[in-house]
Amino acid sequence: MDRNDRLAAWERRADPYLLAASLLFLLAYAVRVLEPGMSPAVRACWAAVTALTWACFIAEYLTRLALSPDRRRFVRTRWLDLLVVVLPLLRPLRLVETHDRQRLRHRRPRLVLEARVMAYAGLSALLLGFAAALAVLHEERSAPGSGIHDLGDAVWWAVAALTTTGYGDATPVTARGRTVGAGLMFVGVALVGAVVGAFSSWLVRRFRQEGEE
Amino acid sequence: MDRNDRLAAWERRADPYLLAASLLFLLAYAVRVLEPGMSPAVRACWAAVTALTWACFIAEYLTRLALSPDRRRFVRTRWLDLLVVVLPLLRPLRLVETHDRQRLRHRRPRLVLEARVMAYAGLSALLLGFAAALAVLHEERSAPGSGIHDLGDAVWWAVAALTTTGYGDATPVTARGRTVGAGLMFVGVALVGAVVGAFSSWLVRRFRQEGEE
Amino acid sequence: MDRNDRLAAWERRADPYLLAASLLFLLAYAVRVLEPGMSPAVRACWAAVTALTWACFIAEYLTRLALSPDRRRFVRTRWLDLLVVVLPLLRPLRLVETHDRQRLRHRRPRLVLEARVMAYAGLSALLLGFAAALAVLHEERSAPGSGIHDLGDAVWWAVAALTTTGYGDATPVTARGRTVGAGLMFVGVALVGAVVGAFSSWLVRRFRQEGEE
Amino acid sequence: MDRNDRLAAWERRADPYLLAASLLFLLAYAVRVLEPGMSPAVRACWAAVTALTWACFIAEYLTRLALSPDRRRFVRTRWLDLLVVVLPLLRPLRLVETHDRQRLRHRRPRLVLEARVMAYAGLSALLLGFAAALAVLHEERSAPGSGIHDLGDAVWWAVAALTTTGYGDATPVTARGRTVGAGLMFVGVALVGAVVGAFSSWLVRRFRQEGEE
Repeated sequence: MDRNDRLAAWERRADPYLLAASLLFLLAYAVRVLEPGMSPAVRACWAAVTALTWACFIAEYLTRLALSPDRRRFVRTRWLDLLVVVLPLLRPLRLVETHDRQRLRHRRPRLVLEARVMAYAGLSALLLGFAAALAVLHEERSAPGSGIHDLGDAVWWAVAALTTTGYGDATPVTARGRTVGAGLMFVGVALVGAVVGAFSSWLVRRFRQEGEE
Repeated sequence: MDRNDRLAAWERRADPYLLAASLLFLLAYAVRVLEPGMSPAVRACWAAVTALTWACFIAEYLTRLALSPDRRRFVRTRWLDLLVVVLPLLRPLRLVETHDRQRLRHRRPRLVLEARVMAYAGLSALLLGFAAALAVLHEERSAPGSGIHDLGDAVWWAVAALTTTGYGDATPVTARGRTVGAGLMFVGVALVGAVVGAFSSWLVRRFRQEGEE
Repeated sequence: MDRNDRLAAWERRADPYLLAASLLFLLAYAVRVLEPGMSPAVRACWAAVTALTWACFIAEYLTRLALSPDRRRFVRTRWLDLLVVVLPLLRPLRLVETHDRQRLRHRRPRLVLEARVMAYAGLSALLLGFAAALAVLHEERSAPGSGIHDLGDAVWWAVAALTTTGYGDATPVTARGRTVGAGLMFVGVALVGAVVGAFSSWLVRRFRQEGEE
Repeated sequence: MDRNDRLAAWERRADPYLLAASLLFLLAYAVRVLEPGMSPAVRACWAAVTALTWACFIAEYLTRLALSPDRRRFVRTRWLDLLVVVLPLLRPLRLVETHDRQRLRHRRPRLVLEARVMAYAGLSALLLGFAAALAVLHEERSAPGSGIHDLGDAVWWAVAALTTTGYGDATPVTARGRTVGAGLMFVGVALVGAVVGAFSSWLVRRFRQEGEE
């Protein structure tokens, strides 16, 4: 068994744990943002969950780096893996790869092509939008002049940013909030565009099939 | 005649009545939202229309469930049918299927592919936009800080949300209004994207044909 | 020479005059909107230009109706021609057909497919946007609460509506202004979508050719 | 060696210097906009950089014009080259051509088709957005009623304009600022649309390949 096989085997085994760790990280982040008035003990507990899951991400990346036959190539071609280690809130962007590997293992019946594209682009967009809403809420809640004061405002802003509707009633005003916002707009316009494209071609295919019958 | 045939026969027979019931439901909803100062008797009358049409939707769904050969599969694969029973304002989303069945019956001359996609995605978007405008008007009319006070404001907001233009002059501020708004933005971006895609490919095809002549 | 040929011959001959009349109509409309303080004599003069060009549109439509072999079919299949007689500001929508006929006559060297689509969808969008800016300025200039006071505001609003950007700083507030705005958003999203689609596929084709060389 | 070959040879040799001059021009423009309180000597120095690089652009264009075998055709078919000489901030629009020529020289391993389209459309959009942010900041900084006061506001506005999100919190109010804004919206909607289209088709291809394995 050469190194490439060992890397692939490790990735298949690690994926479910990584997915659980990602959800735990997002949960811990959500709790810390949404409950600013926690007791110090509870806060420390959730901070520990964040630190622990983050450590898992780093350890898992280093393991894969060690297993890979050509390390410089690994770092260069899989830059997305490094990015989601540095910014774990971007982890939904790796959903596609995780899904690819899961599917190869389970061989379950497939959805049609467009439904798979919609499911994965849509799910990534929703998770990223939720993470961005939390991050913006964290930055903007007590900023003067901000229109984002609770989770409802933040989610409403994130939906308007993802669909590029962009109402002006709740927008980030701080530099960090706007950086998150700019990131969400760029990623959102691509992911939502992919969902719309897949839906559109599914609809055309459906009408074409009907015409041929 | 097996169960699948009986299900298909029932659906063909029920479609025109369902369409009429859907329009009646939308009409009753519109009247109740737009005429808040009705006398109690008239209000009760329209409430009865709502209840009756909703009961029709439920009865029709249960009939199809009873007729279907594999009930668990029916519920799982036709989740959209269940959704529009729970939220009848989303019924325009089933227009495509209804149209498929109608066309199989009448065999009338067909529009070109792109025109059919545009007609059905566009019509669904318009009906859903109108239903969303009514629902948002209902929630927002007397909310403090809301910019949506009459049907004109609500329709204007719905058009801006459907096309993802998103002016900030009339936006929902209540939690329920924003939930409707988020739904309209997501569904709208997909349906309007399908209309634009079909228009674009029709235009390209037309210019290509001309080039070949 | 049968009736279909006579209709086609008439259309080829009438096109340049129709195009001139369309531009004259738009010019007269622009002057009347932009110079509200004209002397009565000058105003009457421009009103006469409007009336005359409109009469030309009606006469031309009736002539074609008379020349067509099947009049009911003519009205039904060429509903766009009737629409632009009723609302002459929508005339840019007929640019594509006019161009088709012109090209058949002149046989001039062709642009590539995508460039033609971009040129015609883009030109239609710009002319419609300008007409909509004039119409909105006419309705909104003296409306209370309106943010559109001069041609600059109106054109800025029209650009933001065409690209579905939708800033909230200058939006129509009257019912008629919003009707024009809703029309521009729907037409704009389709025409600009066609331009973007053609540009995108031109870019992909260019990069693909380069890859094959 | 005929004139066409000499023109192509010149272009290959000039490209790296042109790219450096373009970045220098953008840098000088950025410094002059972002540091309004420079001492006169420093200001004159940066003005000289601007003038010098601009002179390079003009000289290079005239050289190519002189080398081209058919000068009228050169001006007509390569109008983009003339445009970026008159408005050097639009130079990112020529990135695609420059890249084509560079690649022919180096023959380096290629990215997949969609990645190349995304890289070049995305990079052009980002550079143009940055140039537009600078230009709008220059015009709007001290305009009454403007919401754009520092580079952060201007970049935030440019991101919202490029993605057609369009918040109303920071929009140009001067005629020149709005002209830049309208240009950015039109160019941005096309370039970002190309990025989204390429991303979407890359995602579909990836899911399709996986389905075939």
